[in-house]
Formats: sequence, C-alpha cells, structure tokens
Amino acid sequence: MYKLYNVKTWGSLAVHCLLEEMEAPYTNIWMTPEQVRAPEFRAISPLGMIPALGLADGRTLYESAAIVAFLVAAHPEKHMSPELGSPDYGEFLSLLVFMSTEIYGTGNFTYSASDQVKDEAERAALKAALFQQIEGYWLLIEKRLAASGPWLMGRDFSALDLYAFMLTLWNSPSEQALHDKCPAIAKLSAAVRARPKLKAVLESHGVLKPGGYPAA
Amino acid sequence: MYKLYNVKTWGSLAVHCLLEEMEAPYTNIWMTPEQVRAPEFRAISPLGMIPALGLADGRTLYESAAIVAFLVAAHPEKHMSPELGSPDYGEFLSLLVFMSTEIYGTGNFTYSASDQVKDEAERAALKAALFQQIEGYWLLIEKRLAASGPWLMGRDFSALDLYAFMLTLWNSPSEQALHDKCPAIAKLSAAVRARPKLKAVLESHGVLKPGGYPAA
Repeated sequence: MYKLYNVKTWGSLAVHCLLEEMEAPYTNIWMTPEQVRAPEFRAISPLGMIPALGLADGRTLYESAAIVAFLVAAHPEKHMSPELGSPDYGEFLSLLVFMSTEIYGTGNFTYSASDQVKDEAERAALKAALFQQIEGYWLLIEKRLAASGPWLMGRDFSALDLYAFMLTLWNSPSEQALHDKCPAIAKLSAAVRARPKLKAVLESHGVLKPGGYPAA
Repeated sequence: MYKLYNVKTWGSLAVHCLLEEMEAPYTNIWMTPEQVRAPEFRAISPLGMIPALGLADGRTLYESAAIVAFLVAAHPEKHMSPELGSPDYGEFLSLLVFMSTEIYGTGNFTYSASDQVKDEAERAALKAALFQQIEGYWLLIEKRLAASGPWLMGRDFSALDLYAFMLTLWNSPSEQALHDKCPAIAKLSAAVRARPKLKAVLESHGVLKPGGYPAA
C-alpha cells in the first residue's frame, strides 16, 4: 500500500492519475501548502517536496519523474511504459526526464529565480525569457505528437501522457494558450480528460474541465 | 553498439564512466562545443543536448539521467542499480532525478538565467542565491553518505556514484571547496577516482586528479 502526499493541482497530480490508471492500492493524503511548508513534513520528504510517495517499508520517494519511473517499473504488468530496458523504454525515459527537467524545472525557476531579482523590468525580462524557453520545449512535444501521436509513445497510452497533461495545466499565460498554439497537445489533453478511470481524480483536483488551474 | 556523443568534462562524463564500468560496447565520438552548437547536431539530438546516446536502431537518447536510468535497466546483469522495480530502485531513481533536476539543473540556471539579467549586482545576487541552493542540496547528499555510505546506495557501488562524482567536478567556486565542506563526498570522489576501470576515461577528460575542471 502506497501513501501519496498530495496537493491539489501540484506535481502530485500526475502520480495521482497514474495510481488510478494502474488501480494500485494507495492511501491519498491531501495536504495544504502550509502543511507542506511545515518543518514536520521534512521528516517525510527531505526537501519538503510534493509529490512524495510513501512505500510499505516506511521509506519515501520524491521527485515526480522518479516516482513515475519507479511505479511503471514496479508494476510492469500494467503496461504504463514500454518494456523495461528496451529502446522504446529509453525513449520513454528521455521524454520523461526532458519534461521534468526542462518544462517543469524551467517553470519552477520562473518563480524561484525571478523572486531573487529585485528590479521589476529585469524580473519581467527574465520571466519572459524562461517562458519562451518553455514554449520551445512544447513545440518539440507538439512536433512529436503531430508526427507520431496520438500519445507520446505513439499508439500506446503511457505514464508520459499523464505527466505531459499535468504540465499543460500550468502553462503560462494559460492552458488554453498552449492548446491554441499546439493542436496535437490539445488533442492529447482532451483524450486524457476522457479516460474513464481519471474522471474522479481530475474532478478532485478541479481540472476535469480546461481552465481549472489558476492562471499565472 | 552504442554511440556516445561526448564533450570533455560535460554531462556526458557520467555516461562515459558508466559505459566503461559496465564494459558495454560503444563508439566514443568526441565533440567540440562548436560542433555541439552546429545545426547539424540537432538532427541527432533534438535539443542539441550533450550527452546523447545513439542506439543500434538509429534512435538517439538524451538527458543524462534518462540515459543512466536506461543503461542500468538495459544491462541489469551489470548491477549498476538495485533490482528494477524494488524499493531500493525507487530510492535510486529519487536520488538520480534529484541530482539531475536540482543540482545539475540549478547549476545550468546559474548560467542561462543569469545571462538574462543585465544589471551586474542583480546578476551576482541571483547567482549567489542559486549557488546557496546547490550547497543545500549537497548537504543532503553529505548527510546521507555520512549516515549510510560509502556509496549513495550504501555498500553497493552504483551508477549514482558516477553521476554524483561528475557533479562534484562542476562545483562553484571549486571541487576542493565542496570536499572541504563535505568529507563524505570527498571520500566518495576519491573512491571513484581509484576505480581501475575508470582511470583511462577520467584521464581522457582531464579529471583523474582533483582540480582538472576549470573553476567557474
């Protein structure tokens, strides 16, 4: 039995969706941002990071991409990734880490790094440059989906699609702006939202319909 | 037969070391920074990223953490990670992605993001804040190694140690400064350098002895 430390619309959303798709047994622990920032949570997640996934033996995993990669490897019979160790699996991992490091990571920096910059014009310029970088990353995803979709691994739905879906919600200035620019990504998002096993979980995060995530 | 697109002391170093430790067959392709930036390389590595790992079927993998996670899964008999899907493997992945996203990623931002900031004092403040963040990450690694070293997975050497070693080389202001602050990390670095299979590869990158990487 897993324990998911979960905050609505945060990085735990992809893990939450994946656990539901896999029908894996887990206890869901909703947390508020205040509870996440509390020192007690550091005993569970050393960096105070969400998501955190508690294992049966008491250990806790962190980093969303690592948790996703762990879950697909721990439950290969659920086919949420290509066969472990295969060339397709290598591509799966490249895309997962790419989305996590470049899209998610750069997005985080638009907050943390620009908070360090005091001058308003400088801060705005830095944010704009980072958002443009993120747009370039999305265009690569769009190109791949347009060429060999509908899913990121082609005809096979995988954990990558849940991860990508989560990131689309956070797009600045809005999810809709990304859909307008990238039709294959919009199609993927709609297809994720239409999956029966995800209805309740997406509703619980308030994102079953587009625009549920507050605009940046 | 793999193809490693490799630049001396860059992110390909950990993959290069891992291929040597695993005795996996590969062709090493040394590249200059100019060749990496050339448009032709984008046909191989869509983001122009180093490392890139060519597979036998013509595909190319990217993102250092993804390549490492792929190689340990493709060659489980080399025991460069805990058993795939096990709780230890989950911890292995958490640490790998943590180092890749937080230490490597934040390090990259000290260049790219601060390049966007024109004011010298603002840029220096941003860099200082990012370096301090990185130091906090290293202190977590140090704490783990001191409690349950000598390797990141305890008594078992793994691909994580090669990845961590690479990151120590890039520390600002110097590798030595990190060693001085974190004795367990210094011990791990020395133990990596002492591995017989790595002598030639570390020499080829100019980092067999500490201080081989140019100070930032």
